[in-house]
Amino acid sequence: MLAKSNLGLYTDFYELTMAQGYFLTGNAEKPACFDYFFRKLPFDGGYVIFAGLDDVLQLIEDFHYSDESIRYLADQGLDKKFLEFLKQFRFKGRVCSVPEGEVVFPNEILMRFEGGVLETQLLETLVLNLINFESLVATKASRLRLAAGQRTILDFGLRRAQGWGGIHASRAAVIGGADNTSNVYSAQAFDLKISGTMAHSWIESFQDELEAFRTFARIFPNNTVLLVDTYNSLQSGIPNAITVAHEMKEAGQHLIGIRLDSGDLAYLSKRARTMLDNAGLKDVKIVASNQLDEHIIKSLLEQGAPIDVFGVGTNLVTGKDDAALDGVYKLSMYDETPKLKISDNIEKVLLPGMKKVFRFSGDHGEFFADAIVREQDPVPERMIHPLYPLKQLPLSGYKEEKLLSVVMQNGSRTVPGSSPSAIGNFVRQRLERLPTEHKRFENPHVYKVGIGKELMDLRDRLLEKHAPF
Amino acid sequence: MLAKSNLGLYTDFYELTMAQGYFLTGNAEKPACFDYFFRKLPFDGGYVIFAGLDDVLQLIEDFHYSDESIRYLADQGLDKKFLEFLKQFRFKGRVCSVPEGEVVFPNEILMRFEGGVLETQLLETLVLNLINFESLVATKASRLRLAAGQRTILDFGLRRAQGWGGIHASRAAVIGGADNTSNVYSAQAFDLKISGTMAHSWIESFQDELEAFRTFARIFPNNTVLLVDTYNSLQSGIPNAITVAHEMKEAGQHLIGIRLDSGDLAYLSKRARTMLDNAGLKDVKIVASNQLDEHIIKSLLEQGAPIDVFGVGTNLVTGKDDAALDGVYKLSMYDETPKLKISDNIEKVLLPGMKKVFRFSGDHGEFFADAIVREQDPVPERMIHPLYPLKQLPLSGYKEEKLLSVVMQNGSRTVPGSSPSAIGNFVRQRLERLPTEHKRFENPHVYKVGIGKELMDLRDRLLEKHAPF
Repeated sequence: MLAKSNLGLYTDFYELTMAQGYFLTGNAEKPACFDYFFRKLPFDGGYVIFAGLDDVLQLIEDFHYSDESIRYLADQGLDKKFLEFLKQFRFKGRVCSVPEGEVVFPNEILMRFEGGVLETQLLETLVLNLINFESLVATKASRLRLAAGQRTILDFGLRRAQGWGGIHASRAAVIGGADNTSNVYSAQAFDLKISGTMAHSWIESFQDELEAFRTFARIFPNNTVLLVDTYNSLQSGIPNAITVAHEMKEAGQHLIGIRLDSGDLAYLSKRARTMLDNAGLKDVKIVASNQLDEHIIKSLLEQGAPIDVFGVGTNLVTGKDDAALDGVYKLSMYDETPKLKISDNIEKVLLPGMKKVFRFSGDHGEFFADAIVREQDPVPERMIHPLYPLKQLPLSGYKEEKLLSVVMQNGSRTVPGSSPSAIGNFVRQRLERLPTEHKRFENPHVYKVGIGKELMDLRDRLLEKHAPF
Repeated sequence: MLAKSNLGLYTDFYELTMAQGYFLTGNAEKPACFDYFFRKLPFDGGYVIFAGLDDVLQLIEDFHYSDESIRYLADQGLDKKFLEFLKQFRFKGRVCSVPEGEVVFPNEILMRFEGGVLETQLLETLVLNLINFESLVATKASRLRLAAGQRTILDFGLRRAQGWGGIHASRAAVIGGADNTSNVYSAQAFDLKISGTMAHSWIESFQDELEAFRTFARIFPNNTVLLVDTYNSLQSGIPNAITVAHEMKEAGQHLIGIRLDSGDLAYLSKRARTMLDNAGLKDVKIVASNQLDEHIIKSLLEQGAPIDVFGVGTNLVTGKDDAALDGVYKLSMYDETPKLKISDNIEKVLLPGMKKVFRFSGDHGEFFADAIVREQDPVPERMIHPLYPLKQLPLSGYKEEKLLSVVMQNGSRTVPGSSPSAIGNFVRQRLERLPTEHKRFENPHVYKVGIGKELMDLRDRLLEKHAPF
């Protein structure tokens, strides 16, 4: 089990060796700023939904070293004086962030951690671990939502989630657009709506399918979705479900739906709809599951599959083909000096110094472009492509907003957390303002993120100082 | 945080609705057997390493419903009498399993859960969640090990792991073949060896790189690996590392290595090796990291890259392209009767009844084939392809062993857990006995898993009874 008392150990060992280094050289309190951002959009998509903020802020407040943790670190050869210091450690710095649920893009600063270099360094792994993962899943869920329109989306993923990763996966799924989850643990922890009725084993435990259906409907008259593919959906499952639906009707009850879990879902859902409609059961819904993702949902609906509810598991909670967002946590400022990592890959060169991000929107509120500038700079009138300085974009006439704001001061949260469903509403509002061409699944249009001239000049000066490219 | 007190909620809601159904119909204690198996090999590979057993057994022993959990379930509308029962719930059944670390194949029974239908049903999600994930990561790690030979493999994945999934990922990584992990939490929890030195931020926090290297070496004379790509590996990082290595030598110390984290690792490692060797530093190792996987490691070594240590992150702890093993938990026996789910996909048809698995090996101990038979059957003399009955394989002359054994009786473990590194040794022994053609990365030879005649007859009788295919 994840022991809260050992939360301080939930980190890469090098954060601790570096922390010891800062401590022993007397640099622990030197002011530093680290930036969180990612480089590559997942799912060949056009945007990311930023998620995990509320969890990370909570964990930062809880982050400490118990006696047990200290003893373990002593066994690993860390310095005694440093460990004495670590016993008292609490993060006392400041965090700025874009809001949870914001629509964001590669290379722009999403979080900024300011404080002593030791305390800000120590948070790196924790921040990356949760923000990378929840943002990945929220992004996936938002794509399912785009594909499914107003239809219901259920998170069925816990059994295929990556171990305890399932806990935050379900939270992020609801932020991104899922309606309900099967995951009871997360539903309790994060106040999510739960769903669930029966597996094949329930049906097999009866002499026949009809008896299994009837019994379930008797026990759960308000929560019955009948799984119809245990033996044969068309010949057995759906006819038996129709029988039970009629019996429930006579008793003044209502069968919510049937669930298809194998076979060709387009074909079967059409046949099922016809059979249900012909039996006067237009209000019995069709739930479909089995290896769904946004592309399959889109295809099913394009084929006119009359599916009302999609149960999505593996692809939602793991990202499947794209199992990680590549977010990084990079030093941008140390001891009042802007810092630059150069790297042997030009596209990995960073943006130095303390920075902020403006978003520019058009007359109808549609997002147009984002610009990264130095913290002290005014709203820029034009922005420059970070790698191709000849590419420039005028920004006058657009309405700007600042994306980053203070969310933690002196180690304490300054803003309350929101519920996942409230964050989900924010996601929908923001995604509506993102033009369609950035949201399409195939080869989406690249959203423009540029930098201000002063930031470019600062970066180029530092580059010249260090590196002959 | 994951609250142990809410462990009983770590499940899909339908397990609880079905459990309530079994309880209210008086069927809770009816004997049942569920099988765990998977269908599809991950990574286009030829085998899977079974992992997660020790964790799952521990969690089954801990699995219960706290008052808080019960209150939550009451709010979800579950039955009061059922919840009274759930308050006292503990799993009291029997579990049979293949050993943790075993080399296993699709469709063969890897775990068998026997007990009342309610108690065995309730475990489903928990079992699938951890066994699927740890087996995935252990399998990936074993492939890295095959590619890396005797070279050291470090797990660097925590920052890209799927949330708390990182906890078991590092354990499974060591089972599969990783030597050390950067993940301090898991190292403490599972007694793994840890590694870690410095990030780019350490170097940037100094006026110059040489000073950063020197300072670290002074603080960690026994644990220094210098990260050389902050500014320019060849022009700055490696020359500075050589300077520090000489200074350490003079002080009677030893620089363990340098780390390359960007650029072309084949080219840079060769240049680095030459520079180090020419400086008389043949014993300074080269560590490489940056989006590595088994294919890149294989390619690097084929190119003669003199890399001693591979740090692997995302691909190891998430599986990346293949983020989930598709393991399932299926009812095979209920109330003394063999059960069969048929499905609208023929390859998803199950094997009914209580079963066991024999592995057959040749004269030199090499694994030849596995056969699934009914529990009561003797060692089979031939086995039959599960889908193509004309394909049969004689088994006489091969040495057999039973893969499944009892690991839990009356809800208590009957075998002690092993350390991940001990399980890792078992993995190596077993993988050595798997012929090379099943281990190659490209289009591996399919390992044969068949069924006994009596099992086939039983399945076919049940199929006939239910379904006109």
